[in-house]
Amino acid sequence: MQGPDIHILAAGTALPGPPIDNATLARLLGMPTVWERWIDAFIGTDNRHFAVDLATGERRHTLTDIGEQAGARAMAAAGVGAGDIDLMVMGTSSPDMLMPATVNLIADRLGINDIPTYQLQSGCSGAVGALDVAHQMLQSGRHRTALVIGGDSCAKHLDTTVDMAKLPPGEQVNAVLFGDGAGAVVLSADPRPGSVVLRRVFARLTGLNRPPGQVIEWYGAAELDSGKPPAVEDYKAIEESVPTMAAEALQELLEDLDWKDDEIDYVLPPQLSGAMTARILKTLDLPMAAEVSCVRSTGNTGNALPFFQIELALPRMVTGDRAVGVAIESSKWIKAAYALEKV
Amino acid sequence: MQGPDIHILAAGTALPGPPIDNATLARLLGMPTVWERWIDAFIGTDNRHFAVDLATGERRHTLTDIGEQAGARAMAAAGVGAGDIDLMVMGTSSPDMLMPATVNLIADRLGINDIPTYQLQSGCSGAVGALDVAHQMLQSGRHRTALVIGGDSCAKHLDTTVDMAKLPPGEQVNAVLFGDGAGAVVLSADPRPGSVVLRRVFARLTGLNRPPGQVIEWYGAAELDSGKPPAVEDYKAIEESVPTMAAEALQELLEDLDWKDDEIDYVLPPQLSGAMTARILKTLDLPMAAEVSCVRSTGNTGNALPFFQIELALPRMVTGDRAVGVAIESSKWIKAAYALEKV
Repeated sequence: MQGPDIHILAAGTALPGPPIDNATLARLLGMPTVWERWIDAFIGTDNRHFAVDLATGERRHTLTDIGEQAGARAMAAAGVGAGDIDLMVMGTSSPDMLMPATVNLIADRLGINDIPTYQLQSGCSGAVGALDVAHQMLQSGRHRTALVIGGDSCAKHLDTTVDMAKLPPGEQVNAVLFGDGAGAVVLSADPRPGSVVLRRVFARLTGLNRPPGQVIEWYGAAELDSGKPPAVEDYKAIEESVPTMAAEALQELLEDLDWKDDEIDYVLPPQLSGAMTARILKTLDLPMAAEVSCVRSTGNTGNALPFFQIELALPRMVTGDRAVGVAIESSKWIKAAYALEKV
Repeated sequence: MQGPDIHILAAGTALPGPPIDNATLARLLGMPTVWERWIDAFIGTDNRHFAVDLATGERRHTLTDIGEQAGARAMAAAGVGAGDIDLMVMGTSSPDMLMPATVNLIADRLGINDIPTYQLQSGCSGAVGALDVAHQMLQSGRHRTALVIGGDSCAKHLDTTVDMAKLPPGEQVNAVLFGDGAGAVVLSADPRPGSVVLRRVFARLTGLNRPPGQVIEWYGAAELDSGKPPAVEDYKAIEESVPTMAAEALQELLEDLDWKDDEIDYVLPPQLSGAMTARILKTLDLPMAAEVSCVRSTGNTGNALPFFQIELALPRMVTGDRAVGVAIESSKWIKAAYALEKV
């Protein structure tokens, strides 16, 4: 059974607060200048945005706020109203609350009701996972137009009172790599002249018997003084594994579509950091493809990030252009990829 | 486009620890005998199980533990191995960690790999939501056999050091209503002799402009001393709304299938508590249907509960039997329903 083509009608994104460069970040976190240079040299992320004011600890935006903004922008750009949306799928690792799910708070703000709304608990592959779920639910014929959202906000994690210099590198790196943001696309089973077709999308767990590369804890009332570290990255494992996993995901995508390396016009690579993206691009080896990246100016916005890349890619694509995107989640090692074609 | 019939091959469930009756619960929480009688009279839940030892605060089971157990039991009952599962969808409001998603830790324990694994952040309608997502992903033709899991564990919420008597009723009621558990079914696009077909399933947000009936917070490192209440129920709003919403969900399901009230052999009603279920059943008004309930002996196990009901219903159904299930989520007001038919 082959379902109808599913089209991306438009994308929208939102970033909270002003951009924070590395010098400002080091100053606000009380870190020395050498740390700032270490970020420049080894991470390659220049700016990020935070939903929390680092100077005061004040929370300025919720994930609901920026998710609403991204969703409203995508809907406006697609020319659809709340009544046109008959499915919402969201990915996030950092919901505002456990209940209600953030997707439902965003729906409320957008005036969306009486439709299925699903929120995936997911990391860096979550945007692609949300696209996969929405794509298949549109292909099943039960739904016509989906608002797909991805977003993350570190406001609950970023403890501005902690002495950053005393944290182990595996925890320090979180303040450097990640930024807050939200993104969205409108997917539709109804063709539009000049729309971009989501040709393929998949996300697959590939972590059997491997320890997680990233662990993020949450605390309930029973464990507020548990002393467990809130978030740990095994950055070494990530550096070693992600480029290979990205190449595998790309190869599988191209083989499935019977697309050749030199037929790809745009590549939307994984965006853990500027430095990692540069390394990954070498292993992807797409000779004709222009890179579509945003991580240097946004940081890794997690579940939002592929939507930032798609927003950049859409207006550049002309009829016949092909784009491929890859996302890798280090939590329990998930490979994800998607393919776009302008018709 | 009409996809293939999707069959429930088998169900499996798991409960942690021994059953805790109301007298034991009152004693362990330091509550007076009158409280125990209040539970008997107004709640109607006799027992529940907890993943945490109330006497010591020790956490004995994770959600991963009980989810693995339920999943393994469903797979064994269905006669499928890890290599047969090509999709996992889980619903929970209480993941063990934010990252990795609990569904991926369960997959690892079960030896499942190289497949899409999605975890919905959801409350009492989450099991039905997970069934809906899996059902459509199987109907799209991309997948053949899905393990669908639902589970909740209050281990991170149940603070055994707090003085329960000093909490407002909206927080006290959480210790009474809920229990921990996990459930699972194996869904397949491949027919089996005597299997039960999942004829319809839907979950729909219906809370536009309504305040949430249930709020559950999580805490990150930045807000361990925020003082926000961890979980609040608006039990009055729930009592008022849920019976009506359940009747609406049922009516919509029956109209969609063109099934008559008197053609339903089993009803699997919402299970907030024994008392609420009795009230809801009156509004559902299915003259020929036998009730399939478990809440008196399990408490409201959230995302697990419909799987407990399905596990009870499956062996009772004979060829031609029809069953309908309803779940209502009070978080942001979600209606969910599903229909089963033995072929």
